[in-house]
Amino acid sequence: MIAVTLPDGSVKDFEKGTTPFEVARSISEGLARNVISASYNDTIIETTTPLTEDGSLILYTWSNDEGKKAFWHSSAHILAQALEELYPGIKLTIGPAIENGFYYDIDFGEHSISEKDLKTIEDKMLEIARGKHEFSMRAISKDDALAYYKEQNNEYKVELIEGLEDGTITFCDHDTFTDLCRGGHIPNTGIVKAVKLMSVAGAYWRGDENNTQLTRIYGISFPKQKELKEYLELLEEAKKRDHRKLGKELELFTFSQKVGQGLPLWLPKGAALRERLENFLKAAQKKAGYEMVISPHIGQKELYVTSGHYAKYGEDSFQPINTPNEDEEFLLKPMNCPHHCEMYKSKPWSYKDLPKRFAEFGTVYRYEQSGELHGLTRVRGFTQDDAHLFCTPDQLDQEFMNVIDLVLYVFGSLGFENFTAQVSLRDMDKPEKYIGDLDNWEKAEQAILKAAEAKGLDYVVEHGEAAFYGPKLDFMVKDALGRSWQLGTIQVDYNLPERFDLTYKGSDNELHRPIMIHRAPFGSMERFIAILLEHTGGNFPLWLMPEQVAILSLSEKYEKYGEKVLNLLENNEIRALVDNRSETIGKKIREAEMNKFPYMLIIGEQEEKDGTVSVRKHSEGDIGTMTVEKFSELINNEIQSTIVSFNV
Amino acid sequence: MIAVTLPDGSVKDFEKGTTPFEVARSISEGLARNVISASYNDTIIETTTPLTEDGSLILYTWSNDEGKKAFWHSSAHILAQALEELYPGIKLTIGPAIENGFYYDIDFGEHSISEKDLKTIEDKMLEIARGKHEFSMRAISKDDALAYYKEQNNEYKVELIEGLEDGTITFCDHDTFTDLCRGGHIPNTGIVKAVKLMSVAGAYWRGDENNTQLTRIYGISFPKQKELKEYLELLEEAKKRDHRKLGKELELFTFSQKVGQGLPLWLPKGAALRERLENFLKAAQKKAGYEMVISPHIGQKELYVTSGHYAKYGEDSFQPINTPNEDEEFLLKPMNCPHHCEMYKSKPWSYKDLPKRFAEFGTVYRYEQSGELHGLTRVRGFTQDDAHLFCTPDQLDQEFMNVIDLVLYVFGSLGFENFTAQVSLRDMDKPEKYIGDLDNWEKAEQAILKAAEAKGLDYVVEHGEAAFYGPKLDFMVKDALGRSWQLGTIQVDYNLPERFDLTYKGSDNELHRPIMIHRAPFGSMERFIAILLEHTGGNFPLWLMPEQVAILSLSEKYEKYGEKVLNLLENNEIRALVDNRSETIGKKIREAEMNKFPYMLIIGEQEEKDGTVSVRKHSEGDIGTMTVEKFSELINNEIQSTIVSFNV
Repeated sequence: MIAVTLPDGSVKDFEKGTTPFEVARSISEGLARNVISASYNDTIIETTTPLTEDGSLILYTWSNDEGKKAFWHSSAHILAQALEELYPGIKLTIGPAIENGFYYDIDFGEHSISEKDLKTIEDKMLEIARGKHEFSMRAISKDDALAYYKEQNNEYKVELIEGLEDGTITFCDHDTFTDLCRGGHIPNTGIVKAVKLMSVAGAYWRGDENNTQLTRIYGISFPKQKELKEYLELLEEAKKRDHRKLGKELELFTFSQKVGQGLPLWLPKGAALRERLENFLKAAQKKAGYEMVISPHIGQKELYVTSGHYAKYGEDSFQPINTPNEDEEFLLKPMNCPHHCEMYKSKPWSYKDLPKRFAEFGTVYRYEQSGELHGLTRVRGFTQDDAHLFCTPDQLDQEFMNVIDLVLYVFGSLGFENFTAQVSLRDMDKPEKYIGDLDNWEKAEQAILKAAEAKGLDYVVEHGEAAFYGPKLDFMVKDALGRSWQLGTIQVDYNLPERFDLTYKGSDNELHRPIMIHRAPFGSMERFIAILLEHTGGNFPLWLMPEQVAILSLSEKYEKYGEKVLNLLENNEIRALVDNRSETIGKKIREAEMNKFPYMLIIGEQEEKDGTVSVRKHSEGDIGTMTVEKFSELINNEIQSTIVSFNV
Repeated sequence: MIAVTLPDGSVKDFEKGTTPFEVARSISEGLARNVISASYNDTIIETTTPLTEDGSLILYTWSNDEGKKAFWHSSAHILAQALEELYPGIKLTIGPAIENGFYYDIDFGEHSISEKDLKTIEDKMLEIARGKHEFSMRAISKDDALAYYKEQNNEYKVELIEGLEDGTITFCDHDTFTDLCRGGHIPNTGIVKAVKLMSVAGAYWRGDENNTQLTRIYGISFPKQKELKEYLELLEEAKKRDHRKLGKELELFTFSQKVGQGLPLWLPKGAALRERLENFLKAAQKKAGYEMVISPHIGQKELYVTSGHYAKYGEDSFQPINTPNEDEEFLLKPMNCPHHCEMYKSKPWSYKDLPKRFAEFGTVYRYEQSGELHGLTRVRGFTQDDAHLFCTPDQLDQEFMNVIDLVLYVFGSLGFENFTAQVSLRDMDKPEKYIGDLDNWEKAEQAILKAAEAKGLDYVVEHGEAAFYGPKLDFMVKDALGRSWQLGTIQVDYNLPERFDLTYKGSDNELHRPIMIHRAPFGSMERFIAILLEHTGGNFPLWLMPEQVAILSLSEKYEKYGEKVLNLLENNEIRALVDNRSETIGKKIREAEMNKFPYMLIIGEQEEKDGTVSVRKHSEGDIGTMTVEKFSELINNEIQSTIVSFNV
């Protein structure tokens, strides 16, 4: 008998040789039906692998990442079998699971393949799947494994096997197919009910462009047809919401080869959007006692030597800016904190003056490889909604909680309701990795944990993930398509106050070191706007829309009435414009819809006579005729209901 | 007889040998009393120089710059005489008039002199002046001139004379004193009624640090004692208003050696002031149809090669920023226009879309020698209130006038009532200096002249002062101390649209080149705020003050009432703060006065009971007790009266 410990801590005795599948069945028939992979003592095994010693067992289903990985890796085997049957003589190389699905890299030899062949391959895969062939692992000696692939003239697998140690090599068989494989499969092919091959691409053997070019086939598979359908719809939606596409359509920003890659140019509508977001945060920050400051976009080398950033400049960074005076060497600023430290130093402070909260929408520059640039999410110049709080150790708890409140207010008002947090603490076993005294670390970590608890955050704690200068709290938001993005961050810093020799006079009349908090709820304006675009598809919360209302006249005759409606709306602080072109009303509505106007007011003879407007809501259509006052009330109520309240 | 033409164009006949003084007396006794210098046929002469041929005569009085120059140059002679009498054996070198007064550089030999000796010298000068000694010029041969100074062992004057051509050398005599001199004196020493020697400094002979160090005495003189007194008061006031001093006292900005010279760090109160000014201009610009854009602070070399700025980068500029990719070389942006041109290019335009007006508070960087840096008026990084208008030739007239309206609105609302303009046109004789077709130049120059005329500007026209790419209009404002500053500029540009190949589709369906207008009413935020500080002494117009009202409680007991008053004021959009510290009311008032709060509201038991506030106005004192509503009305009326109306 062996003792098997389950994730809930319970221990059960089973006969030696019992499989994970059998353990699952001993728990429930439902679990047995759904289990598709397992790990034993932290090693991935098959559901059919006999357990031969005491240990901890985890059973995975489709709902676990590990379950999906086994599912997609097994699907790659099915793909390979299908390809071998359809294109005899091809040479297989590797076929791993990836974040969404799997791929297989193949040397097609004399065959060639294109996207139009994918349907045939999918059909063949489903045919194989329906056979409910079991996956079964077997150990094989290095010599036998080499002999097997040498006979097939597969130099790739031979090369792979040559890199492995004899005694660790396994093959996986299913149906008529065999592949070199470390394991981690679903029980049988029959679980794969839906397959979609996404694309064909070129890929060099082992990623080295000096090697043979192989053909990579990307695919994804699901246990239910419905899940595949949903996934494809999501992809379609994500494509529609791509912020680069929307940014162009809505004329928010552009890039210019001459200005330089990764350096966004904000066009009028984008700049207005950014300003609105900045004003929103500014208002909240003002309420929370922050003060705006402005610092230059360059700093002398000396500044970054003091801050410690200079040591991190390398050959892959923007290089220094020289001047006629060889003692003066400047650098593009990669962050705002050194500048804010120098501002703090501009006068002596008393503990009565603290906390001091310097905020800046500071544009920073960091060189990224051109291959890594992507729209607004990865750029070379970006504007942080940065702030640095200087406080006494006693104030840390409260300040940290206030910052969380501010972050939650920002997320809430922008429609991000789905988010988690990560608390990054020291690795207690490696105290040498961190600076600052232990007492302060203890206090800071407790402050963060207490704040996360008090604010009811859904958080995980990661030991060893703290920065060397202090612990931190990061927020991850889930967008409307279920994708996760890392957004706001709050960090405690003992390092910069030390390096810049920042002080305040305590109530004991002695000089003390303040603690610094770095924080940025948006992170970067560029990245945040990209995420917001993809989250909302451009249909921003009403309060944020640059133009909330389009007044569409039935003909140029109603120009005067249009202006009157516009004035009335502006008096009610509603942003609107009049479209009085000599175009058909149909065209005006279509364009206003495409430009995401939340409301359209149609005006013609009847409306002018009655002093009313005919209201259309974006993507909903006509919602009736009413007075401008009534409409203003309606829209202002809607705005009130979308902004989360923020009390400090 | 000779014919003398006067500035009014009238021609009078005089006997040959008549002096300017006699001509003045023939016009009026008053003029004769006041005339202190003259020019004949564009050459400065004495008022006692006989006129021997036909010519044009200008008579100068104290109110002309030329008159002041003669006055101060003559005063330098008196200073030299006084010094020779007090310190026998000293060697004179040069003694010119300068912008404000004069100086004389002296080799004092065995003597030494310091600021405490200046009073004695002034007294001696006034004693000489009272002698009413006439200045009289005489020609002297080079040999005789050299002999005169060699006998005195004055190697400086010898060196000067050796550089002169025989036949052009003149000496000037008055009383017992003689000096080598080109001429341009007042009639006699008696006109100098007030003298102030300002300072003693070191100066190298001929400005070359390898030469002997001389002693320079700076002085100023006036025809009336009262004028000297006013001048000294103005100096005192200017010192008090020095923006570097006020900037520190009001905690508006600071500099850090580590961040770098000439790179201002805007502290909270300064950043708030800047934001207020920017918002003020933004609101006006929005009304005038401008759209804000945002561009990065760097651009690729290619951008500046296209714009033509690259050719102007030199060894005395910020050097290029290299990257790991040798094809990518960036430059700190010295101006925003190339970026805005690339934004314009981001889509095709029709004539119906124009004018397009892109505005940006764009921070630009230009390397200035450290010796040239001065507070905020000369910096290495500054923010232009920049805009670029793209219009059709037909729209130029109206656009130019609209820009003038905007500039006048800005000046008016900020209390600059005293300004002049300069229209800079082509040099018609040198067409090769300019680019763009003649017809457009003609149109643009006419547009500027017409606009200047239509807007009733007090302007001068300077031919040959246009930029190579187009004509322009510059504004000069006079501040409260009578000093002139160049502020806003409006320029027409044919060059960049050409270089960037900017186009729009005309009503003829053909592509045309738009005209660009560059304009910046403030010029630079940094420089403008410096000027505004010196103009107002920190007592900004009420609407601009970061905090308009300080609520000063008589004791901490009135904290609640203080908060109530604050809320009431904020509801009326008045910016205020509560000073509820446990300090005496006297100290609170003194500090609020020093911090330039326009209004102070004192609250105590009586005020809380009555629901009133006791109002003090900055530098005026108590103006009575009133309700908060009444006070809000008062302050809002004052604001309304200081903002000029702006209609577009």
